[in-house]
Amino acid sequence: MPYMKCTKCGGRAVYHRAYSGEKLCNSCFCSSIVEKVKRTISKYDLLNYGDTIGVAVSGGKDSLTLLKILNELCKSHTSKIFAITIDEGISGYREEAIKICKDLTEELDIPHHVLSFKELFGINLDDAIKLRKNKVSACSICGILRRRALDIAAKGLKVDVLATAHNLDDILQTFMINLLNGDMDRIRWLDPVIKPRSEFFARRIRPLMEIYEKEIVMYAFLNDTPFQTVTCPYMNEGIRSEIRSMVNALEEEHPGIKYSALNSALKISQNLITNERELKTCKNCNFPSSSDLCSVCNILETIKGNMYI
Amino acid sequence: MPYMKCTKCGGRAVYHRAYSGEKLCNSCFCSSIVEKVKRTISKYDLLNYGDTIGVAVSGGKDSLTLLKILNELCKSHTSKIFAITIDEGISGYREEAIKICKDLTEELDIPHHVLSFKELFGINLDDAIKLRKNKVSACSICGILRRRALDIAAKGLKVDVLATAHNLDDILQTFMINLLNGDMDRIRWLDPVIKPRSEFFARRIRPLMEIYEKEIVMYAFLNDTPFQTVTCPYMNEGIRSEIRSMVNALEEEHPGIKYSALNSALKISQNLITNERELKTCKNCNFPSSSDLCSVCNILETIKGNMYI
Repeated sequence: MPYMKCTKCGGRAVYHRAYSGEKLCNSCFCSSIVEKVKRTISKYDLLNYGDTIGVAVSGGKDSLTLLKILNELCKSHTSKIFAITIDEGISGYREEAIKICKDLTEELDIPHHVLSFKELFGINLDDAIKLRKNKVSACSICGILRRRALDIAAKGLKVDVLATAHNLDDILQTFMINLLNGDMDRIRWLDPVIKPRSEFFARRIRPLMEIYEKEIVMYAFLNDTPFQTVTCPYMNEGIRSEIRSMVNALEEEHPGIKYSALNSALKISQNLITNERELKTCKNCNFPSSSDLCSVCNILETIKGNMYI
Repeated sequence: MPYMKCTKCGGRAVYHRAYSGEKLCNSCFCSSIVEKVKRTISKYDLLNYGDTIGVAVSGGKDSLTLLKILNELCKSHTSKIFAITIDEGISGYREEAIKICKDLTEELDIPHHVLSFKELFGINLDDAIKLRKNKVSACSICGILRRRALDIAAKGLKVDVLATAHNLDDILQTFMINLLNGDMDRIRWLDPVIKPRSEFFARRIRPLMEIYEKEIVMYAFLNDTPFQTVTCPYMNEGIRSEIRSMVNALEEEHPGIKYSALNSALKISQNLITNERELKTCKNCNFPSSSDLCSVCNILETIKGNMYI
């Protein structure tokens, strides 16, 4: 790379931010990311002073970066922070991730709680996938169970908010997928300040939602954050990877377009009138549900046979 | 192409509709298009019995197809129909289109009105483009003036509605462009049943909005509709052509995805709360405008110099 001067301090730049035209040195780049996270938190009122925060950490670049940044911010906010890792039970994959999370939380002196699918639902993901009879995807099973596991963990730890590490690219891709699928409810759910529909659900916040994925990789790299780079063996992204390539191609031609698209997606999610079905109570587990049996019990029933009927 | 049997009548199929799995013969395919247009009109209440309809015809496949279909439908609806062509003044291009429109309207016995930029605004597009000083694109100038020209024509002919031939692909692309640009107002304007904001504006309907562009080409071909195939010499589609390729690639992999995306786009346009600025009156031409000088006078002023000040 030719020598570039940092637009802010004149030091040696390590990153060219195409959408703003800035060239940034290590320190100015990292500050800009932390500042951006602060602005997101403040713009959407994501956190209050003294909040207890549960951070969902998987061991990937996004969640460990989020943990580090929130940990720094919490020092001045008298907030308490917990790290929560869900062990889905993916042999040969999740062990390394848990080790990485454990090491970092020890280093940062953050309490780390690991909850497993096995202890919560009586089955790990590997077995669930072997037992599934229909065509439900591994990602669907995992997503539904992980969401519930995080709600249970959040309630158990009595956290005020559950922070997840979804970045700008994740949110934009999710918006596009929901758009293509015609799923208005899920578009509505992208609203950064949406309130949980029941006390059983944790209030979720996404402090990295305005940060480009590639800038999180850069941040993790510049901060020597060790993270798992192996991808999940069940990863089957389907349309998400197509959307990712398309959106990246657009960004390449029109730097900043992802950011304005995210803004539109968020504005739409906040200003959309939808008719959501009223929540019932799952007849099996008493969790709120849009039908008689919640999605978790429904999936477990399908997998384990008719154990709940 | 191997011999295919029409799924509906058993005849010789000429078209495979990937998103439904149907194979259709000439007659069943054409009926399906007309039926689809009827369903769109009925679903969104686009037309009332006895309405006087102005159809904007450019000479391309979409507008001539729309004219033919509406002309057939009008016969049973006691509706009156006018064809309106705007002559922007694009030398070596528009003449052929006008001739095609003239021939078809004569054949169908539909009154045909041609209004030119030159007579309405005192300048044709070729000259306007030569005179523009800033970087405003030819398509922007043309779009703003053409929109006004159609409003003037619609009022002059006292039509109840102005039908334009935007197809499913057009609308979806426009939605995506507005999304990427963060333009919520223009997303709101895609609402198929939105009311004009002033009596100066014609009520616009888009009866082809649920028809795939490639099916309109097929329909025009099967109906021996002559249409202009040369593209406008000023065409500079920029991001629209990128979006078109992306959406087409998605449709190729996931037949029907354009249709569900259109449904989402329309639902969003109909359920979005936006804060549109109140309309003022243009100090020069008295047309409704969001600022003191309307976009038409603003463009003409830029082009012609300060003739209005």
